[in-house]
Amino acid sequence: MFKKFKIPDATIGRLSLYSRYLKEADEKGINTVSSQHIARATGVTPAQVRKDLAYFGEFGTRGVGYNSRELYNYIMKILGLGRRWPVAIVGAGNLGKALSQYKGFYERGFDITCIFDTDPNKIGKKLAGIEICPLDSLKEKAKAFNIELGIIAVPAAAAQDVADKLIEAGIRGIINFAPVNINTGENVMLRRVDLAAQLEYLTYYLEDTR
Amino acid sequence: MFKKFKIPDATIGRLSLYSRYLKEADEKGINTVSSQHIARATGVTPAQVRKDLAYFGEFGTRGVGYNSRELYNYIMKILGLGRRWPVAIVGAGNLGKALSQYKGFYERGFDITCIFDTDPNKIGKKLAGIEICPLDSLKEKAKAFNIELGIIAVPAAAAQDVADKLIEAGIRGIINFAPVNINTGENVMLRRVDLAAQLEYLTYYLEDTR
Repeated sequence: MFKKFKIPDATIGRLSLYSRYLKEADEKGINTVSSQHIARATGVTPAQVRKDLAYFGEFGTRGVGYNSRELYNYIMKILGLGRRWPVAIVGAGNLGKALSQYKGFYERGFDITCIFDTDPNKIGKKLAGIEICPLDSLKEKAKAFNIELGIIAVPAAAAQDVADKLIEAGIRGIINFAPVNINTGENVMLRRVDLAAQLEYLTYYLEDTR
Repeated sequence: MFKKFKIPDATIGRLSLYSRYLKEADEKGINTVSSQHIARATGVTPAQVRKDLAYFGEFGTRGVGYNSRELYNYIMKILGLGRRWPVAIVGAGNLGKALSQYKGFYERGFDITCIFDTDPNKIGKKLAGIEICPLDSLKEKAKAFNIELGIIAVPAAAAQDVADKLIEAGIRGIINFAPVNINTGENVMLRRVDLAAQLEYLTYYLEDTR
């Protein structure tokens, strides 16, 4: 299903960085930037900037640079951010609460449209202005709001069941914050993010070296 | 400085998953588990479980399995989690607030000890019971509380400066949540986590396929 030309994951991540810098430059009235400018602002080498952009075509004018706003718009389009994306969070616990309040999603074009939970004490209440809805209403809401992205913020034991429900509701991309690997089949894009495990990568290396 | 035998990053991530399952099993009174049990609960193959554990020695009894509590304790030690780690968060904004409230850190042995900011309107207030301290006091607090891990939750433009201050304060492991690459030198372990970019990896692939 995902026939897109295979670009390295790291390139996608850097395009995200570049676009944030370009937006800032454009807002400051800097109309033209060089690969050196982009590189310095994002912590990569100018050659890497040029290589990453070359995957997608020819940009800029040799000896002049790139038009900030044009390149920004183009990268946003590459990233699929030429429009806003409604997002569902499942799990109105501690993490779901934190994620629903995170403005960084909104700034990049993601609207947390619904938060779902099974706890009757939570359903009907609001988190960051967004109503907590019963998990049973997932399919109906996903259809009504055109939601294609879902965030799993439930305990490990419930994560696969939630993933199955998201897929049944037509969700096509999932971020799993639960500390367990889940199976979503080949028609759904999946990424796992484990916040505590990020610290554990550090302590694994640091423990020995004191 | 990091002389530890080079184990794949993915193995470290899976050890984290295994240990969470083993804790649960032990708490449920399940004394002995097989690689099949661990595999099923964490979404990997039994062969992968055995391979990951084999990096660190011989565990378990052939035909019997592993003692849940023993293997849990051993993996926690491998991950550097045989003790609790004090952690500093820099940035008392939306994200710092969210992270300071995230219980998943505490459960794995991480104590958010201090939150630092430069905004005089925030300093002195409390987030999730933790006082917001002036960034100027970072070095002093890091020493007082033995803090070796830092989380950067400031805007991109301030991230490198904060990283420099963390390193100067003796911090040895840093997680950077700011959408910019930073330089920490070779004596500090660094990981970058970009929450919005995780969604962008999905939209990059999904945009084309509708």
